[in-house]
Amino acid sequence: MDVLMIVILSGLLSILVALYLFLHVSRRESGSEKMREIAGAIREGAIAFMKRQYTALGVFTAAMTLILLIFLDRETALTYVIGSLCSASAGYFGMIVALKANVRTTNAALEGLEKAFPVAFYGGAVMGLSIVGLAVLGLGVLYRIFGDPNLILGFSLGASTISLFAKAGGGVYTKTADIGADLVGKVEVGIPEDDPRNPAVIADNVGDNVGDVAGMGADIFDSYVASLVSAMLLGAAYYGVSGAILPLLLAAMGVIAAIIGVFLVRVRRGEDPGKALNRGTYITCLLFSILAFAVIYLQGYDLNLFYSTIAGLVAGVVIGVTSDYFTSINRRPVQVIAESSQTGAAINLLTGFSYGLISIVPSIVGICAATIAAWFFAGLYGIAISAVGMLSITGMIVSSDAYGPIVDNAKGIAEQAGLEEEVVGSLDLLDAAGNTTKAITKGFAIGAAALTVLSLFASYAEIVGIERIDLMKPHVIVGAFIGAFIPPLFSAMLILGVGRNAFRMIEEVRRQFREIPGLMEGRARPDYARCVDIATKGALRELIPPSLLSIAITLIVGFVLGVEALGGYLAGSILTGIVFALYMANAGGAWDNAKKYIEEGYFGGKGSEAHKAAVVGDTVGDPFKDTAGPSLNTLLCVISLVASTFAPLILRYTLLR
Amino acid sequence: MDVLMIVILSGLLSILVALYLFLHVSRRESGSEKMREIAGAIREGAIAFMKRQYTALGVFTAAMTLILLIFLDRETALTYVIGSLCSASAGYFGMIVALKANVRTTNAALEGLEKAFPVAFYGGAVMGLSIVGLAVLGLGVLYRIFGDPNLILGFSLGASTISLFAKAGGGVYTKTADIGADLVGKVEVGIPEDDPRNPAVIADNVGDNVGDVAGMGADIFDSYVASLVSAMLLGAAYYGVSGAILPLLLAAMGVIAAIIGVFLVRVRRGEDPGKALNRGTYITCLLFSILAFAVIYLQGYDLNLFYSTIAGLVAGVVIGVTSDYFTSINRRPVQVIAESSQTGAAINLLTGFSYGLISIVPSIVGICAATIAAWFFAGLYGIAISAVGMLSITGMIVSSDAYGPIVDNAKGIAEQAGLEEEVVGSLDLLDAAGNTTKAITKGFAIGAAALTVLSLFASYAEIVGIERIDLMKPHVIVGAFIGAFIPPLFSAMLILGVGRNAFRMIEEVRRQFREIPGLMEGRARPDYARCVDIATKGALRELIPPSLLSIAITLIVGFVLGVEALGGYLAGSILTGIVFALYMANAGGAWDNAKKYIEEGYFGGKGSEAHKAAVVGDTVGDPFKDTAGPSLNTLLCVISLVASTFAPLILRYTLLR
Repeated sequence: MDVLMIVILSGLLSILVALYLFLHVSRRESGSEKMREIAGAIREGAIAFMKRQYTALGVFTAAMTLILLIFLDRETALTYVIGSLCSASAGYFGMIVALKANVRTTNAALEGLEKAFPVAFYGGAVMGLSIVGLAVLGLGVLYRIFGDPNLILGFSLGASTISLFAKAGGGVYTKTADIGADLVGKVEVGIPEDDPRNPAVIADNVGDNVGDVAGMGADIFDSYVASLVSAMLLGAAYYGVSGAILPLLLAAMGVIAAIIGVFLVRVRRGEDPGKALNRGTYITCLLFSILAFAVIYLQGYDLNLFYSTIAGLVAGVVIGVTSDYFTSINRRPVQVIAESSQTGAAINLLTGFSYGLISIVPSIVGICAATIAAWFFAGLYGIAISAVGMLSITGMIVSSDAYGPIVDNAKGIAEQAGLEEEVVGSLDLLDAAGNTTKAITKGFAIGAAALTVLSLFASYAEIVGIERIDLMKPHVIVGAFIGAFIPPLFSAMLILGVGRNAFRMIEEVRRQFREIPGLMEGRARPDYARCVDIATKGALRELIPPSLLSIAITLIVGFVLGVEALGGYLAGSILTGIVFALYMANAGGAWDNAKKYIEEGYFGGKGSEAHKAAVVGDTVGDPFKDTAGPSLNTLLCVISLVASTFAPLILRYTLLR
Repeated sequence: MDVLMIVILSGLLSILVALYLFLHVSRRESGSEKMREIAGAIREGAIAFMKRQYTALGVFTAAMTLILLIFLDRETALTYVIGSLCSASAGYFGMIVALKANVRTTNAALEGLEKAFPVAFYGGAVMGLSIVGLAVLGLGVLYRIFGDPNLILGFSLGASTISLFAKAGGGVYTKTADIGADLVGKVEVGIPEDDPRNPAVIADNVGDNVGDVAGMGADIFDSYVASLVSAMLLGAAYYGVSGAILPLLLAAMGVIAAIIGVFLVRVRRGEDPGKALNRGTYITCLLFSILAFAVIYLQGYDLNLFYSTIAGLVAGVVIGVTSDYFTSINRRPVQVIAESSQTGAAINLLTGFSYGLISIVPSIVGICAATIAAWFFAGLYGIAISAVGMLSITGMIVSSDAYGPIVDNAKGIAEQAGLEEEVVGSLDLLDAAGNTTKAITKGFAIGAAALTVLSLFASYAEIVGIERIDLMKPHVIVGAFIGAFIPPLFSAMLILGVGRNAFRMIEEVRRQFREIPGLMEGRARPDYARCVDIATKGALRELIPPSLLSIAITLIVGFVLGVEALGGYLAGSILTGIVFALYMANAGGAWDNAKKYIEEGYFGGKGSEAHKAAVVGDTVGDPFKDTAGPSLNTLLCVISLVASTFAPLILRYTLLR
């Protein structure tokens, strides 16, 4: 058990480094009064959203804890609360620093791009390192106390449910604000993006934070924890204590690699900041590989487990790169979509839709290759370990990802504060780098989620003690059919929610332009708070029905059709879930960049008919890539964990056996 | 074996009745010279397409026969050729009569709606009755000769591959022509639909025939045959000869019910023709139930098999009705989509997309309920029998469905020939009835395909002799993942094909308007043949890569990962295939009707911003509902049958066992 101290200490170290970076960023100058005023409004809005969301989450968590206490056991209820708290604090902490880093990045940009970059990146790293730190520390301590991975399942369920709310709620929020701000501001009234006269502008900036920082962090946090817990479960079942500890040890090595990686990221003068970010990721991968080999070799584990780890890591990078291919502005798919916009919005949509569907092929092939390789090396446990390997670099991935919305916000603040072209220009460069990372991270997050849910699927079977999930049994295939419609149904309900909420926002923005005298001329201030409030309330209202419905159907299938059919249900939901997650994320990203490509001057440039068509595609893609798509990863984790956690009850009370 | 004569005779009877109706329709007057000239151009185009398609099909069939001869056995090769011939002749025969019935319907409409209706309906019935007649006759005779359903598998494979080409090729053709005609004609040049000055107008009319008549007929023919063959296979395995004959007997009862049903369809004066069509369907269902009960009771089968039959029949009707709910102009979903068009094309698309996804839920629940019920009554054989029950009314369903494109064509001819408002008006009423039937038929076709492929899935396992398909084995779940991306990949490739081909068509139509002097003023005739040629060549070019790819991947999965993984592959493809088929068909239908709803005067009516937005949605939905969506049914049958037919080879040479 002594090696467990390595795990716990690495978790603590990561949190300490995150704290240090937090203070480092906080101590920077926050700029002129105007800049601070804008940043203050964003902070206010974000904190209002978080407050309301955390209140709702508190109620939900309390209810869920009660259910776990009554129907299951005290340990699960306790670890559930701790998991929820860790997830919520990681999100909150990440948000707070992002809200400080944004304006400080703007201010640093006055002295040049090289000065601004580390402020934004370290701001992101606070999120990245606190996520992995909290996860590793929490799991290490809980395993030290309970010594049984089954009881830690609650930790993962807690993390996942909070993530689902953060991701889906944040996703609805950010797109509500975005569509509201764009459709009235840019299209109807004709003012530029981020114009302070737009009543929804603050809500839009807030959205970048609650959707992208807190949401994406929560998404990866949840896969990270779930992959570790399910690997621990399978490890304990097959190899006892040493099998349960290896995933934690690998995670600890990943944490150390990420800490070193973060400090090595630096932009050289005149260099593309995207390159610096990618370099950081590759260095972290390399460091992790060395450390993983060392730990597996020194602790006397089978070297095949090392190969499984590397299989996952390689798959993660491959999936990230291919999803970049389908969404990059320099590649054929995006350019074909842009070209097709000349024939109108419909052909733009059909083309983007098709490329989105084709884009799932290489990623799924990557996932399959990693699965087969990991299984070949070390059986089902190998698959779980490959998921851990893939997610080992989470600290670095989240750091570069959270950087994106920070520079996006920084740019917004610069524009609203009316800073010079040059400053906005260098923030634009930083922002472009953020967008590339974002595409790669999304692919990575989906790939990681896929391997994680496969590993959860294996540990589900282990927990319920079934030898097989046999598709020849009609109730199993019926379970698979029901599972198959959950991800599409969930996506559809969220997207309709965005539509409804955006409609309310549009009405409000129109009202303000109509009723506040002097707003258009810049003589009066719009009522930002009202827009923030609409987005906030609506997001919570719209995320609850699909989330509860998915959890309820999972339990109904289990209690009515039994554990084997529930296994089929999980498999069905994983299949369509991964397909829809990849397709929505990549189609959305491709539409977005096709629009940007035209804005660079191709096919008639800004204002042309092709551009108008591409704007339609981009608007359709927005909730695909920022709301529904990424929420599916978390949804899959949640329903797998609900099935596993409630397995003892289902085994006892099911109708069909 | 004497009861087999009932089967063979009912098949013959059906073909004779079809011939009688063919002569009945042919003998009607074909109208003025102008009308005959237009009809002649459509016929020429359609026959040109069929000729080219059948040449390509001939080459493909010859190659496939050779492969079957070399690698499998003579019997399979022979039944394969016969199946292909039956499918091709049914399609050809149906087309020929549709091409005669269209102008005769127009001419009859001069004397009123009640006179025109039977011409169109009997025209459709030729297709409906020849399909079921050829299938029942072919299967009956082949079973009489070979006495082993395994050898008849080739018949089904032949029918399915021809269907895939007919459906996918017809689907690409019809949308190429439709988009080409609309985008340049209606949008750019501003002339009405079906205007004879539009160079693509004949291609568009041809498309209705090759896509909707030949394509839809082929689609249902293929499910019909596959459901019968797989039920025969399972029946023979479980109950010997009597188990193999029951499906044929039930089909024979369905044929008789449909023949009676067809003659009972009549429009009363002032009645909605849609009602008459629905009444025909309900009467056929009732008659079939009585006959099925009689045959099961008199032949001494277990009555539980009757309940399985009825479970399928009820599910078919339920699925038809719910898909009507999501696409009907009088229901909430379509009206909400229409309303959302006021906020622009993007919101129209997102709303339609979401309702399309939600629409899959009731249909899948219906399929699951039928599966569980049929299994409860009579095991896996019961599931196969329920598919037969659902498809028993195919004769009637195809008759009412093929009626749609005939009246659509008749309306086009009336408009191009410049007939009075009143005639066009009554043809409009007949056309509207056709659209409702079309929505119901599509839902029915998908539901039938779903039950059929489930039944094929069960018979696949029977053929390869595996007891289970265990998702806990990683190569099985990898197979399922690969299967899951086949339907989206296939759809995407077809849709991109439509886009590419439409682009070629648009260029050509623009060229003609530019280069043919006096075309716009109606003084010169456009070059219709050139447009027909572009649509024809392109359709064939675009359908071959996705079709061959799907077949190739199926074989690769089998030979590399083995028969159990191939079972997982089939399950994966069925899950996403049904999801995408339902979602594409229903979203497409809903967008179409949302546009029509606005054209009725709501939300600003024709020409308003809402209408423009709805037109974008309709154009996106077109290849969804008419190309990709319905082709998926056939695709699933084809890959299941490829897996089953090649099973002996795969068992011998697979890498993984």
